[in-house]
Amino acid sequence: MASKVVVVLSGGQDSTTCLYWALDRFGVDNVLALTFDYGQRHRIELDCAANVAQHARVAHTTLPIDTFLALGGNALTDAGIAVDEAPGNALPNTFVPGRNLIFLTFAAAFAWQRDIVDLVTGVAQTDYSGYPDCRRDTIDELEKTLGLGMQREFKIHTPLMNLSKKETVEMARDLGALDAMALTHTCYNGLRPPCGECPACRLRAKGFLEAGIADPLESI
Amino acid sequence: MASKVVVVLSGGQDSTTCLYWALDRFGVDNVLALTFDYGQRHRIELDCAANVAQHARVAHTTLPIDTFLALGGNALTDAGIAVDEAPGNALPNTFVPGRNLIFLTFAAAFAWQRDIVDLVTGVAQTDYSGYPDCRRDTIDELEKTLGLGMQREFKIHTPLMNLSKKETVEMARDLGALDAMALTHTCYNGLRPPCGECPACRLRAKGFLEAGIADPLESI
Repeated sequence: MASKVVVVLSGGQDSTTCLYWALDRFGVDNVLALTFDYGQRHRIELDCAANVAQHARVAHTTLPIDTFLALGGNALTDAGIAVDEAPGNALPNTFVPGRNLIFLTFAAAFAWQRDIVDLVTGVAQTDYSGYPDCRRDTIDELEKTLGLGMQREFKIHTPLMNLSKKETVEMARDLGALDAMALTHTCYNGLRPPCGECPACRLRAKGFLEAGIADPLESI
Repeated sequence: MASKVVVVLSGGQDSTTCLYWALDRFGVDNVLALTFDYGQRHRIELDCAANVAQHARVAHTTLPIDTFLALGGNALTDAGIAVDEAPGNALPNTFVPGRNLIFLTFAAAFAWQRDIVDLVTGVAQTDYSGYPDCRRDTIDELEKTLGLGMQREFKIHTPLMNLSKKETVEMARDLGALDAMALTHTCYNGLRPPCGECPACRLRAKGFLEAGIADPLESI
């Protein structure tokens, strides 16, 4: 029996590409998509994740995390805070401290209960947006921490870690994931069609432009 | 200005002793007690934590975590599962995968928002009950992970790590924490006065007996 894998699926471009990477590598029957409802301002992300999982015909679980809202104080969950880019070397105000660490730890707990050791996350350090928990050195340490803390040798796959947005778009094309891209959500302002102005929209547009591929999201 | 510290306070004997350790080391005005409402079957723990914090006159925050209940499948949150001791080398069914990792990561996020780097947890590997996330090697790795993931050099203090239960009771006495012990909760069966029969009750009784100190909880 082939081994199973848990993919952290946000409903965005990167995690959707990772879902198709996992389909290619583990097979459709072995992929479990896991989405976190952590009080994100843009609830549309949860619908996108469900639509992507359904489109890819994989099992999909959404787990709640009410703690980030209770912690408050960042632009991704707090409606009173506008999205800003980081001034100089500071962290952007979309930084939710520990967000990816929490996601991956809960994903590991979910996997642990199912005797699964492979986890996939769409973090990337190349188009590094100032989130320190998206870097491979952080992921490497987390892998060790999870291994010791749960007595299970987890492997955290980060297929996009060293890719540019252009290369991620090309990977999506090569994996047959472009149709699913029409179902994804990227915009920091929560708009569909996307605003085209926020840092996330601009980064996405740049990737498709450089790859010479039309973004299927633009035509919806 | 003295630095501040976040103490993870469950309302039990060990974390209460740690709270007094922090009071002694950082001063009452610099201690923040942090409790997690993670759907524990024994809601009395939350009252105990609040009572201990009030008794010690420290600021107290309770953060919700609804994810463990959604994950399910363990005896500490799932009312349908009876507490068993671990058979042989297996993990006991009170093991919630990743519980302490999650607590400390959220505690670090809470501290990060307040420019605090010192965290205290009452985990101990001496009276090791089969929880791999209570060992110092796990905590060391987690400290590195949090440091990288949040760009902040956290220090996770584990004052009880290498103490026996007897020594923990003696530390509580030396720190003037015995009065607070009457307010704590230990019993896995959620009883006050405690059942005296479950592994947690037996471990607590053994510690007080060996230290030659009467457990103030016994006289309530």
